[in-house]
Amino acid sequence: MDKSRPDVVVFPRDTAAVAAIVKLAAEYDLPVVGRGAGTGLSGGAIPRAGGIMIGFARMNRIVDIDIPNERATVEPGVVNLDISAAVAPFGYFYAPDPSSQRACTIGGNVAENAGGPHTLAYGVTTNHILGLEYVLPDGAIHTTSADNPGYDLIGLLTGSEGTMALTTKITVRLMRQPERVKTILAICNQASDAADTVAEITARAITPVAVEMLDGEMLRMVEDATHAGYPKDAAAVLLIELEGLVESVEEQVEQIREACMKCGVREVRVARTAEERDLLWKGRKNAFGAVGRVSPSYYVQDGVVPRTQIAPTLRRIAEVAAKYGLGISNIFHAGDGNMHPIILFNSHVPGELEKARAAGEEILEWCISVGGSITGEHGVGMEKNEMMAHLFSGDSLDCMARLKTLFDPTNRLNPGKVLPTGRGCMEIRQSPLTTANAV
Amino acid sequence: MDKSRPDVVVFPRDTAAVAAIVKLAAEYDLPVVGRGAGTGLSGGAIPRAGGIMIGFARMNRIVDIDIPNERATVEPGVVNLDISAAVAPFGYFYAPDPSSQRACTIGGNVAENAGGPHTLAYGVTTNHILGLEYVLPDGAIHTTSADNPGYDLIGLLTGSEGTMALTTKITVRLMRQPERVKTILAICNQASDAADTVAEITARAITPVAVEMLDGEMLRMVEDATHAGYPKDAAAVLLIELEGLVESVEEQVEQIREACMKCGVREVRVARTAEERDLLWKGRKNAFGAVGRVSPSYYVQDGVVPRTQIAPTLRRIAEVAAKYGLGISNIFHAGDGNMHPIILFNSHVPGELEKARAAGEEILEWCISVGGSITGEHGVGMEKNEMMAHLFSGDSLDCMARLKTLFDPTNRLNPGKVLPTGRGCMEIRQSPLTTANAV
Repeated sequence: MDKSRPDVVVFPRDTAAVAAIVKLAAEYDLPVVGRGAGTGLSGGAIPRAGGIMIGFARMNRIVDIDIPNERATVEPGVVNLDISAAVAPFGYFYAPDPSSQRACTIGGNVAENAGGPHTLAYGVTTNHILGLEYVLPDGAIHTTSADNPGYDLIGLLTGSEGTMALTTKITVRLMRQPERVKTILAICNQASDAADTVAEITARAITPVAVEMLDGEMLRMVEDATHAGYPKDAAAVLLIELEGLVESVEEQVEQIREACMKCGVREVRVARTAEERDLLWKGRKNAFGAVGRVSPSYYVQDGVVPRTQIAPTLRRIAEVAAKYGLGISNIFHAGDGNMHPIILFNSHVPGELEKARAAGEEILEWCISVGGSITGEHGVGMEKNEMMAHLFSGDSLDCMARLKTLFDPTNRLNPGKVLPTGRGCMEIRQSPLTTANAV
Repeated sequence: MDKSRPDVVVFPRDTAAVAAIVKLAAEYDLPVVGRGAGTGLSGGAIPRAGGIMIGFARMNRIVDIDIPNERATVEPGVVNLDISAAVAPFGYFYAPDPSSQRACTIGGNVAENAGGPHTLAYGVTTNHILGLEYVLPDGAIHTTSADNPGYDLIGLLTGSEGTMALTTKITVRLMRQPERVKTILAICNQASDAADTVAEITARAITPVAVEMLDGEMLRMVEDATHAGYPKDAAAVLLIELEGLVESVEEQVEQIREACMKCGVREVRVARTAEERDLLWKGRKNAFGAVGRVSPSYYVQDGVVPRTQIAPTLRRIAEVAAKYGLGISNIFHAGDGNMHPIILFNSHVPGELEKARAAGEEILEWCISVGGSITGEHGVGMEKNEMMAHLFSGDSLDCMARLKTLFDPTNRLNPGKVLPTGRGCMEIRQSPLTTANAV
């Protein structure tokens, strides 16, 4: 929903070129914004102050695969899924799996600390980064490794949304492929049955690697688009995935089946082949595309609530939808309370965009009020940077601003992101080139 | 081996008292050093510049246990093992398990980002911290939560060794107790058989939750002290632990047995009862005490090497031992390449302390040379802060120093730790009280 254009777009081929561009930007006092595939959902790659956009499309080499030490080093433009494809012959994979993983790049994943359905078991991007090479706004090239002692710079830079440094090389942890994977579709006549099932699975001490939920509106859009086999008369479906040794996975499938039956689930389907499994996931991972077929515009939210608050949150979202007269369908990572209400609207109808934004903000206020947060995996970007003031005290925001300033003293790296704007060092200064071009 | 005394020791009972003490320290320009149980191995709690020591022994309350959301909030003086004890009735535990876990406190664990035998499966402290309350050197009280967006302050503060803030409340992740635990003792006639077995287990895609190795010298000292049942004629033992569902653990025990047989292991013992299991672990966890019975002084090192470099590193350690004429026994987390050579010496024999330090440094230089690091879990403290210059460029150290200065502009929080001293803001200024007392 946010738009802005850079003055210049460059596609460096290596770290030295990035450093040279950054030095040039320093000389002319220009903003610098990194961009991977531009799939981010919080506007992290939008150059709101103009300046130089560094596209990493040509820095897309897998530099090293080190199987004995279970790691790979890649350039930021490598597509997320391509890492897993490259190491699959060795029996390995890269765990974080954003739904956009066929397109999004690892550099963007690092910037936004991306998650995905399997975050439930494997954590987010920061849990899988073992080393970074990065360029500071003065053009200096640094490296840091998770094996190194001292302050945790990897943790600080991962998720800093391009506001502290430009990442030019990334060492990721590789994980062994599980011996057995089972994917289960649980079909429910009531959304509350699905919520109960999630609670029952937790109570039985089973930890699936993913527990995704789609409500009735969502699954109908998805089914129309991908024919994944989701029954269109259902009120909700759960997509549950188990991984591990053959023996334990088969045992867990039976336990999940029992949990489903106890909670009134209408039908439990277990994918029998890799093709059936892929089809079930295709529905989930292409969900945003499916929405795009139906609604002229949509706004994906990314609130987090404690797992125990999922059912009340679904009710609250329905109330917000009724209040604004907008359709809101739900698809979310049920296992970790990361909700993605999708607000449907038509940006050509005057006032609907504003209504969608207001509905989104109201849902996030609810998330905060029940002890949750305004983003689980999409980042703050320019969508929610002003909302940070609802979560943090002025002192804490000042502390974060000083951290940013330490790396980027003149506020030229991705200005206007993450932190509320207009507070001293966080002021957005438009690129002098944009100003000159406008004359 | 390092010693120093504070001018004043205080035992606050709550966060407000900590803030008041810190403000007083600011007024009189005094260093402030936090201390948990003082079990740290890199001198993190030693007040090398004098000043005020804040002992957290009286801030030892478990504030909240939230089982539905799998977390607990505790004060820094709570003993590590007491958290697991408090949540055990609910079927939960706190994962990071330093060998000192019966004594060490969670505040110290956060400061040093402590690990333990089960780090192999569960990661270090930073992977289990969901929220912090902390006091800055000006007395301001802040909180931060892992659910919150923005820069990762929890990651930055965890492992900062008390140089940035004093932690006053900690929210930890709780994990479900596994359904089945099996502990295996593999007895080897040659140390290389043990190293081969570790490689073979990895090759078979089994991931135990712990793989500990003790060499012959070490296991004899341990056996004399704890009568854990380690055979005193062995050249090495492996202590391997498996966790999970009953079915998968039983299957993995057989696979481990096969791996051991293939690599020439003399005997494989599987603990049959919880008592047998506890006894095996008692040997491992009391190892430092066992060394203390035998040697007048000892120096525990904490190098890390890639898993593939374990065997060459053991050979190198033997060479260093021969060169300096000191006994060096080995106990280490084999699964993650975290070596703990224990250098035996007598501090009353002139020159032996210096020899021990030199031997330790030589081993760490080797670790760096094969792509490893100078500390895995004990922290940098004042033991290795000067060695940081061997791992990092001046630019990177300056970047870390600026981070420290951001939180602690006058360098009064645990001065002389983590970073090399004497570089501008990292200069150690002796407490004015110490100077006054000395007059």
